[in-house]
Amino acid sequence: MGGVAFIGLGNMGLPMACNLTRAGHRVTGFDLSPAAKQAASEGGIAFAQSALDCVRGADVVITMLPAGKHVLAVWEEIVQASQPGALLIDSSTIDVESARAAHALAAAKGLLSLDAPVSGGTGGASAGTLTFMCGGSAEAFAAGKSYLEAMGKRIVHCGGAGAGQAAKVCNNMILGATMVATCEAFVLAEKLGLDHQALFDVVSTSSGQSWSTTNYCPVPGPVPASPANNGYKPGFAASLMLKDLMLSQEAAASIGAVTPMGAAATGLYQRFVAEGSGEMDFSGIIAFLREGTLLD
Amino acid sequence: MGGVAFIGLGNMGLPMACNLTRAGHRVTGFDLSPAAKQAASEGGIAFAQSALDCVRGADVVITMLPAGKHVLAVWEEIVQASQPGALLIDSSTIDVESARAAHALAAAKGLLSLDAPVSGGTGGASAGTLTFMCGGSAEAFAAGKSYLEAMGKRIVHCGGAGAGQAAKVCNNMILGATMVATCEAFVLAEKLGLDHQALFDVVSTSSGQSWSTTNYCPVPGPVPASPANNGYKPGFAASLMLKDLMLSQEAAASIGAVTPMGAAATGLYQRFVAEGSGEMDFSGIIAFLREGTLLD
Repeated sequence: MGGVAFIGLGNMGLPMACNLTRAGHRVTGFDLSPAAKQAASEGGIAFAQSALDCVRGADVVITMLPAGKHVLAVWEEIVQASQPGALLIDSSTIDVESARAAHALAAAKGLLSLDAPVSGGTGGASAGTLTFMCGGSAEAFAAGKSYLEAMGKRIVHCGGAGAGQAAKVCNNMILGATMVATCEAFVLAEKLGLDHQALFDVVSTSSGQSWSTTNYCPVPGPVPASPANNGYKPGFAASLMLKDLMLSQEAAASIGAVTPMGAAATGLYQRFVAEGSGEMDFSGIIAFLREGTLLD
Repeated sequence: MGGVAFIGLGNMGLPMACNLTRAGHRVTGFDLSPAAKQAASEGGIAFAQSALDCVRGADVVITMLPAGKHVLAVWEEIVQASQPGALLIDSSTIDVESARAAHALAAAKGLLSLDAPVSGGTGGASAGTLTFMCGGSAEAFAAGKSYLEAMGKRIVHCGGAGAGQAAKVCNNMILGATMVATCEAFVLAEKLGLDHQALFDVVSTSSGQSWSTTNYCPVPGPVPASPANNGYKPGFAASLMLKDLMLSQEAAASIGAVTPMGAAATGLYQRFVAEGSGEMDFSGIIAFLREGTLLD
């Protein structure tokens, strides 16, 4: 018995599960998509007939799913079949309320649980360099850490149930707002006759510095690895940034927090995605700011 | 003859001029405020009777004044009395259009000129660790660099006339927007039950990273030197951040650039300053976001 059950073998889940097998874990996977079966097999992952079959006898169960409703539907089912003492980890990026509800489902059956959303994208998932932001008890974190280390390079215990999702949503709200502000500044600089490299040289070493400039500069040139040098192919798709910004606004509304910059960024990405640019990297919003079409 | 003329011996100009004397330059100063005379004398700075007297025979003239109108009024006068071959440097933070008009005044008299606004605040002015963002010809930059090095540790040539002001206004627009977004995230985290240190640990090493978190964290604790640990005493006063944001919005309007996040940040700092918090550090806006009073 033992081993890891992995439910949700998509663009993120599949390479994460493969890294668990490479680290020596016996992994049984499940996904509703039949296409996942072949890919799982190539990665050394046994494919179960159902989510319930997948989790039977597993020491650790990991879910990687699109949204809170999927996570709750799967957890309601699998908590029935998970063995006593099992640890359930949800690495999906979902709303804080659903994450807490999932913890409650596990707790009602005496199971350990973590919310553990990731940052690092599909590249980090393949390379095993994800950051995991974890919420849950110290016991659950201690039980899960070595498994997460097989898939990531930074495993952070942020606090109790839901704290991982809270940290991710806060981080990504800052990211979205900062990226748009950075894009605005590069466009303003262009129109003022200041070249990109000059603004980069000032900002990257001054008080305007951020990851959005230093690691992910939204114009071609200064940071060769940034998506701006590759036609704004993601990277981190605008549709996923919008998903995270929407989660931030839901969280803010649910507890009466005031997030005017987060709201402004959300509105801009809604426009950007509605205009058909959801599959573009999120830094590609600079083109819309340059044209001024967003404010028509 | 020779030496440096320094016009504007206020909170920034006085310590800058003192650093020039410490570097061995003969400095003649002028300020409309009589109080400056005593302080200048203590710093080894000769005090002139007028701006015109101040610049006569000087190799380099530096102005450090509140706004574009002051700079243009002084430059219109002093270009008449500056010796042939003199270099005029304006280190005030002013609008790009006025900076270019000042360059044109100098050029019409065959004088070299730089716009060279600074970052680093009064602390950097005293310590001689300012960053100078310079706009002007290569010849003017070469002529001025050694003088600026007596007052700063980073001297950047950003481009032609006005490029220094453009770089500063773009940097500070990013700064204002990023700081507000960072404050929003810390407040959202509080209300979600995520503690400050946990959010700092995630954001400072993730894609939400910025100078606003890493060097100037708006909550007490994670960054001991940040104004949040000192009752939000500046630091960088909210009124000065508002001034720079207003300059960014003037610049954007003058050339048709779209800056929705910059505009949102400007509106928030207008509210914050209007409520009497202009002398508070600009990171103190977190208190207003926490109370939600800004959106009443």
